[in-house]
Amino acid sequence: MTALLVELGERSYPIHIGAGLLEDSAWLAGVLSARKVAVVSNTTVAPLYAAAVHKARAGRETHDIVLPDGEAHKTLATLSHIIDALVEHRFGRDDLLVALGGGVVGDLTGFAAACYQRGMGFVQIPTTLLAQVDSSVGGKTGVNHPGGKNLIGAFHQPQAVVADISTLRTLPPRELRAGLAEVVKYGLICDAEFFDWIEAHAEPLLALDAAALTHAVHRSCAIKAAIVARDEREQGDRALLNLGHTFGHAIETVTGYSTWLHGEAVAAGLLMAATLSAEAGWMPEAQVARLSTLLRRLGLRTDAAEVPAAQARAAMSLDKKVRAGQLRFVLMRGIGAAFVTADYPAAALENTLRRHFG
Amino acid sequence: MTALLVELGERSYPIHIGAGLLEDSAWLAGVLSARKVAVVSNTTVAPLYAAAVHKARAGRETHDIVLPDGEAHKTLATLSHIIDALVEHRFGRDDLLVALGGGVVGDLTGFAAACYQRGMGFVQIPTTLLAQVDSSVGGKTGVNHPGGKNLIGAFHQPQAVVADISTLRTLPPRELRAGLAEVVKYGLICDAEFFDWIEAHAEPLLALDAAALTHAVHRSCAIKAAIVARDEREQGDRALLNLGHTFGHAIETVTGYSTWLHGEAVAAGLLMAATLSAEAGWMPEAQVARLSTLLRRLGLRTDAAEVPAAQARAAMSLDKKVRAGQLRFVLMRGIGAAFVTADYPAAALENTLRRHFG
Repeated sequence: MTALLVELGERSYPIHIGAGLLEDSAWLAGVLSARKVAVVSNTTVAPLYAAAVHKARAGRETHDIVLPDGEAHKTLATLSHIIDALVEHRFGRDDLLVALGGGVVGDLTGFAAACYQRGMGFVQIPTTLLAQVDSSVGGKTGVNHPGGKNLIGAFHQPQAVVADISTLRTLPPRELRAGLAEVVKYGLICDAEFFDWIEAHAEPLLALDAAALTHAVHRSCAIKAAIVARDEREQGDRALLNLGHTFGHAIETVTGYSTWLHGEAVAAGLLMAATLSAEAGWMPEAQVARLSTLLRRLGLRTDAAEVPAAQARAAMSLDKKVRAGQLRFVLMRGIGAAFVTADYPAAALENTLRRHFG
Repeated sequence: MTALLVELGERSYPIHIGAGLLEDSAWLAGVLSARKVAVVSNTTVAPLYAAAVHKARAGRETHDIVLPDGEAHKTLATLSHIIDALVEHRFGRDDLLVALGGGVVGDLTGFAAACYQRGMGFVQIPTTLLAQVDSSVGGKTGVNHPGGKNLIGAFHQPQAVVADISTLRTLPPRELRAGLAEVVKYGLICDAEFFDWIEAHAEPLLALDAAALTHAVHRSCAIKAAIVARDEREQGDRALLNLGHTFGHAIETVTGYSTWLHGEAVAAGLLMAATLSAEAGWMPEAQVARLSTLLRRLGLRTDAAEVPAAQARAAMSLDKKVRAGQLRFVLMRGIGAAFVTADYPAAALENTLRRHFG
């Protein structure tokens, strides 16, 4: 097991990373030590891993809140359902919610914890690669709204994150690949050496090699934790974590969150951000090609030809990255050197839309 | 006009108090200077005061979100309606919500501001006495849930509070009296001299004397601001502000929020807290009688005979003031000397329930 700390003063918390963490009941009992615990999961994850949590909580009050699976349920209505259960079992502010599942479960559970009685504690146990390297770390919580993804939410930090990479053995391969897109993102943002390492370990990662996955999750979380520690509430540097996401969200919005996984949309978005960076003259085209090759090796799509460029542009204009009416992007001066700007040639964006959208 | 500052570091904000503030368009324009503003009010308040806000915003993008009036609409569904409007008008994080109305409008608007894109700014323009002295100050926002009042919410501080005591001229007299219960509360918590002043100025307050109201609002806000500055997120001293509220919420819950105004329930709750304090041997019975006399002079009820004691006790067990399973109360060692304790004789609570409930 390795661990790292997200440094946020009195809101600091550890991320535990390793194989077999959920099977270590004595250790897990210490992480989940509240008087009452409610384990929020879904119909896919609960049969696989809820028993491990209950074993760690043996003899102590523990409830299950099992949600339907899928992004379609990341709504205020599902939030209300979680609150119902907390009221029914008379949870107080000092009790604990546990998010056992992927990003949807984590975002919903974290937002429920943020809102219930104006704030209670929660622990993240992410069971997807995407959640382990991204959504479970950093305190962003929320639900979707017909008008856009994550439009309603809060910043609320967990008390701890338990990333058991053994859970990735039950993850559909397509979701593993989608999660690797976010791992690639961290290399692109600020760590060219890590990008090199991913290129050298693409096959072990796809084959679920424990040492490779542990390193990938640890390095990804360390990069995210450092950025979040600098900018908890997304006033500045944290925007770097949105590399690829402005384009990615546009793909998800236009396609109704139905055909693309989030990580898949981010993968295409990463290449679009690289393309825009190259079109603007900041990033060498050779590095764009190198990124494209890596994404394809990881089994990820790099275009969105079925999405009309005009619809993508309209979707982007509601993105949270719009400040004072100006659309900002996270772009790159090269692999490992991302920056935020609203100052790029209009033609560069047009060319990027033309190259990657329909 | 007078002003005071709620000292919360980078979240500090001013409370402006006085007569005729909404009519001073040039000044108000400076307070509401965002690019886009949405004014959230209700069907009662909008016809009275929305025009003043629009006048101050002349020539700048300003939208109205008019809600149905009443506590019954303080729900997730209404929150969702506010979010709909923000999405429709493409609000960003740097735009501004204005809460124009009483506590329900303020709590809903503040929670919408806390949640929309994980946080945008808002300004409170409270138009009831209760909102001016209590709910608009301190950053508590939220909505009700079938299981209890304010069960879903957030701490989110406004950018400014504009308490125009001229708006109290359109307030139903019953609501003015209910608001005075919270004013009395501040004297009881920590300011015996202010309690004396209220006793000496009950008639001018009920007659809407501008100088008396301005002083009452200013002193109330100053006491609340000092307590909130010490304890923004209710880990300690802020609990003092709940004096009378554990009993009061029980009355509201059992009666279904239908027959008692919040401030009326708090008034009865204040006397119950005083009674419990006296039964426990901490507060002189003569001071309980003095409080009872003042509340009656202000036209407020001091018993809840129609509420069965057993139902009140059950309602209190879900109160947010329950920590680690133990019911805590804010009690008094005398007028101006409140403290929090879970260490009182069980018989004292039983006697209090018997004296004031059915």
